[in-house]
Amino acid sequence: MSRRGILFVLSGPSGVGKGTIRENLLADRNDIQVSISATTRTPRIDELDGVDYFFMDKASFLLKQSRGEFLESATVYSNMYGTPRDFVESNLLKGRDVLLEIDIQGAMQVKEKMPEGVFIFISPPTVDDLLSRLCKRGKDSVESIEERMASCRQEMSYMSDYDYVVINDDLDEAVKKVEAIIIAERCKTRNINLE
Amino acid sequence: MSRRGILFVLSGPSGVGKGTIRENLLADRNDIQVSISATTRTPRIDELDGVDYFFMDKASFLLKQSRGEFLESATVYSNMYGTPRDFVESNLLKGRDVLLEIDIQGAMQVKEKMPEGVFIFISPPTVDDLLSRLCKRGKDSVESIEERMASCRQEMSYMSDYDYVVINDDLDEAVKKVEAIIIAERCKTRNINLE
Repeated sequence: MSRRGILFVLSGPSGVGKGTIRENLLADRNDIQVSISATTRTPRIDELDGVDYFFMDKASFLLKQSRGEFLESATVYSNMYGTPRDFVESNLLKGRDVLLEIDIQGAMQVKEKMPEGVFIFISPPTVDDLLSRLCKRGKDSVESIEERMASCRQEMSYMSDYDYVVINDDLDEAVKKVEAIIIAERCKTRNINLE
Repeated sequence: MSRRGILFVLSGPSGVGKGTIRENLLADRNDIQVSISATTRTPRIDELDGVDYFFMDKASFLLKQSRGEFLESATVYSNMYGTPRDFVESNLLKGRDVLLEIDIQGAMQVKEKMPEGVFIFISPPTVDDLLSRLCKRGKDSVESIEERMASCRQEMSYMSDYDYVVINDDLDEAVKKVEAIIIAERCKTRNINLE
């Protein structure tokens, strides 16, 4: 019998660079399935259903949500997003590892439903560093940055709920560390088929 | 305050190649202290006290042993060998990781005294593979190989007492996996200094 796949959850405060780490990580490997989110928002012209997102209308989303079919869900600017449990579960059952990149609130929801997942917290070197990144993005007004600063401090307090902490002070190093965590977790005795 | 070091225990059946993995691992890195054994055997001409071994007479060894100053000890061909606890402990206290390469009986003794260590089982791809390696070594009579075969099967049963299993079917791959385990363990939340 082949082993069950491992769920890797890549998470951290907004602006910490977890999306870039995920992209760099997946560029070199095809042995891990990225989780695909469901959403009620309209597809952009270049987005494909079942590849970029599972697109669905609000009624379908709410029905699935009420049936507990999402590992986590959230509403962002009146659009709903969720992680379909069956997509993750069917990959794990086939022995395929799954990578889920998600914010901290989402990760904490996933942890309740799949505590056996491997939870990786991407941390800024310091909170100040994160603020300077958010400023450089230039998307945000001063007020929203102050709000984010408070929110970031609050988010940092969840670090201890994670299995691993990877400090993103150097992108290549951070990617290597996440790769090492994936390789090491696959060597965990409970993930090895004993003869 | 700096973090406490991590004790990595590299172990596995006799002939599995754990010594070669250790040598390859240490060739490229100086961020881990190899554990130095105490022994009652006579130093060879090129061996240095405190580098290759801590050489001592039988009386000193037995005294230390009776005081519980070894993490593990064993007698091999009337010579005694042991892992001095203070050497390991003082490195860990300084925040330096320690690597201990040892047979399975020794590892199980260490686990009793330092269960917080990271225990890595180096496994042959199959028991048959290990036998063929032992035969190729040519050091052993047929009888001793048969004995070792029984002993190896028995040793394999300890695999589930370890945190990680690394299958040594390719030396470079096995070294990379042990390196990944070291990197990943250093990212464990409990080994990170939270601000």
